[in-house]
This record gives sequence, structure tokens and C-alpha cells, in this order.
Amino acid sequence: MRRIRCIVTYDGTQFSGYQRQINQRTVQGELEKCLKIVTKQEVTIHGSGRTDAGVHALGQVFHFDSPLNMPSGAYRKALNGLLPDDISIVESVEVDGGFHSRLCAELKEYHYKLSMNNYDPIKRNYVYQYGRRLDLEKMEKAMRYLIGTHDFSSFCANMEDRDKVRTIFEAEIINDNGELTFRFVGSGFLRYMIRILVGTLLEVGEGKKQPEQIPVIIEAKNRRLAGRTASPEGLYLVRVQYNEKWLPLTEN
Amino acid sequence: MRRIRCIVTYDGTQFSGYQRQINQRTVQGELEKCLKIVTKQEVTIHGSGRTDAGVHALGQVFHFDSPLNMPSGAYRKALNGLLPDDISIVESVEVDGGFHSRLCAELKEYHYKLSMNNYDPIKRNYVYQYGRRLDLEKMEKAMRYLIGTHDFSSFCANMEDRDKVRTIFEAEIINDNGELTFRFVGSGFLRYMIRILVGTLLEVGEGKKQPEQIPVIIEAKNRRLAGRTASPEGLYLVRVQYNEKWLPLTEN
Repeated sequence: MRRIRCIVTYDGTQFSGYQRQINQRTVQGELEKCLKIVTKQEVTIHGSGRTDAGVHALGQVFHFDSPLNMPSGAYRKALNGLLPDDISIVESVEVDGGFHSRLCAELKEYHYKLSMNNYDPIKRNYVYQYGRRLDLEKMEKAMRYLIGTHDFSSFCANMEDRDKVRTIFEAEIINDNGELTFRFVGSGFLRYMIRILVGTLLEVGEGKKQPEQIPVIIEAKNRRLAGRTASPEGLYLVRVQYNEKWLPLTEN
Repeated sequence: MRRIRCIVTYDGTQFSGYQRQINQRTVQGELEKCLKIVTKQEVTIHGSGRTDAGVHALGQVFHFDSPLNMPSGAYRKALNGLLPDDISIVESVEVDGGFHSRLCAELKEYHYKLSMNNYDPIKRNYVYQYGRRLDLEKMEKAMRYLIGTHDFSSFCANMEDRDKVRTIFEAEIINDNGELTFRFVGSGFLRYMIRILVGTLLEVGEGKKQPEQIPVIIEAKNRRLAGRTASPEGLYLVRVQYNEKWLPLTEN
């Protein structure tokens, strides 16, 4: 068996999220369906993490084990010939058998796009159409409190018992003529975490919360103190980074 | 009756074009359906011109006559409350009864977006995913031959007998990291004209035609000498300009 690692980009609009579900159109489901055609057997893929319905990916990563003895780059070509037009494989390389897309991930980057401008039907599925002004200075001040290692229990869906300590390395807002990009780089993110962080920052930008409340909200470990969950269409999984020891064994 | 002029933006992906057709989802059809709810009677709208299936608009213009005595800006608000999320009214103003969206148009601007980069599923309906390199210098040289007043019979669907003389005031290519915008400003454009112009420019960029052939193709007035019709998803009607005498009588 050979372990193949792929980078995949998708438009999340017409998917019920990344993770396979019965009778739902999912990214994992489509990928596994096409891999079955290529390998002529059932293949389970392992993603770096889920993305929710409507969330996009520029650089989601998954791996699988293949019984075939074909050049790793051929998976990209074969899959792209079979996949629907809202998913595309960017890279397929062979990696060491010890590699795991989720467990070996060291860093993830997410972007959240939001427009303060007039409603734009052309971007409605790709940029959250907020449509009002925000106090960016206050939001940037609030964002700085997020950087560092914290227990983010206040900023996640309370569905899991797992450890909720994560490290945010970078958090910033880029303003391109009223179209904002919230950029988050971290060790990993909990379910809904980015969307709850953005929803909370929006309440700061609206004057409903003060930047100084952020450390208090973190400390409380209480989801009810944070803001709303921002809608999914603005969210992009941009990249997943691994340790250098997991360098590809073959070329794309 | 009051004549109301609207600017409308739409995502053309899920429309069978602008013009009303029986049993098809069209921009005109959706607008008239909502106007009927607002005015409580049948209203026919008159657009500045058609756009084909899949073609987008940032600034399409239409007008209609209304029996109501309400502030013109209220049409924008009322329609936006009723319209589907892929159409949005940007402006609604009252104009003189002599105004006509198509007949009074003095200038139109269209953009055609094309990517030379890798296939991007997120932009598949908004930027033509060409995916290869092009000789931009040759294309720009070819484009300069288009500027001026010409009979564009070689660059249109031969469906109409109308006069095919049009003036192109500006034509340029803007390259943003491999994503090209073909920008055309002209007195008006024939059916499929921009897409055939782009298709012909692509053949120049591919080395299949030389820039110096453009004047010959124009002169021949023969559709078969021009290039293919580029696909619709890259095309945007950006704005329609009218003479200053048609200034709004009311505010948006």
C-alpha cells in the first residue's frame, strides 16, 4: 500500500459539508466515489478536519492508502477527470506511511470574508453580505486578545469533551475597500470556532461588546457569553501545514 | 404615470438570460413578477439590452411606467424585499417620460474575466477557467485594431438584419496575477459580440491567428473568419451610460 496525500479545493455552496453522511452530497462522499472508480475498490479518505455546509476550501488536505502502483501525480489527473466541477485536486503526492492528515497537522489558516458594502448577489455565496459599517479599530483591538494559547470553550459548539486549548499565532483584519478578510492562523480550531470568533468580533464592531470583554469571555469558558455564529459562506480553509519531515516522497 | 429607471445587478448563473421567456427563469421575468406585487398590476420593463444565459450584470438598466405615487427610492426597497437573492436593485429614480433604457443608451461597458491559472472551482461560474498561458502582447496588439467605428458583422450571431456598425472607444486587457479582465467600452454591442471578440483574441494569444489579421476579419464581414464564442460565465455588463439630460428627477 502507498499513502497518498492530496490538497483539494472546493466550493462549499452545494455540499452538506466535508464529512461523509448518508444520502447527503458531501466532499468526502464525492472524493471516495471517484477514488473507488480509480482504484476499483472501497477507499476511505482521512481529512485534516471537517468543514461545515457552505464553507469553502482552498487547501484542504486528505490522505488515503492505495493498492495501485501508479505515479502519485496520476491521482490528481484521474480524480479531476471524474470529480464534479465544484471540487478540484490541486496536488497528489506520496508520503511516508506514518503521515496522518489530521494528527500531523501543525498549523491551519482560515479566512473569513465579510462585506460592509451594498448587497452583492454575485458574491452572496462567497462573502458574507453584512452590509453595514463596523468599528474596525475596536475589532482589531479585540482580536489581539485572541492571540496566544487559551481554552476556547466559550467559542465552540459544546458537542465534544475534548481538550479545548488551542493556540492562535496570528489574527488580523485586512480591509479591501469595505470587503474585510479576517485571517486566523492557529494550531487548530474547534467546531464553529472561527464563526463564533467572527460573530463575537462583529458585536464588538457594532458597539455591543467592548474589546476588553474578550479576555473575560475566554476566562468564563461559557459559550453563552460569546457572540452569534457568523454564517458559513464567508469561511475558507486556506491551508494546512505539516512538519518538514512529512515532505513528499514523489512529485505532484 | 411616472417613469422609473432602475440599475440592477444579478448573478446570471441560474438564469436563462435577461429576456422574458415562457417557462424559463429570467431576470426580466423575476423583476416583472415582483413589480406586479408592488404595483398590483401588470408592468412591462424595458432593459438596456439582453444578456445571455450565464452572463452577469453589475449595472444593467431598465425602466417602466408606474401608476403609483410613491417615492422612487421605495421601488428599490420594495423590490429588494421581494426579489430572489441572485438579483438586487442598486438604484431606482424617476426620469423624464422621454427616457428609454435601450434607445437613449450612449455607451456600455463590458468586462470579460478569464483565468490562465489552475482551475478554481470557487470561481467557475464567475471567471472563465481557461487554465493555460496566452501571449498577452499579441492579444493587446490585436485589441488595438478593434478600437474605432467598424462594421462588426464578423463578430456577431447572424440573427438580425440590423445595422452592424458600432464604435469601440476603449479596449484593454488588465492582468492581475494571471486573471485577465478584457475591458470593452463602446457605443453598443451586437449579440455575442464581446464573446466572439474574446474568442478571436484567444486564438491570437494561442498563436493560431496573427494580430494583423484582425482588420482583414473585420473587412470580410464573415462570422466564419472570426474565432469561437467564449463561454458566458466570464462576461459582465458593468454599466450603461446616458446623456446628462436624462438626469434623475428624484433621489434614489
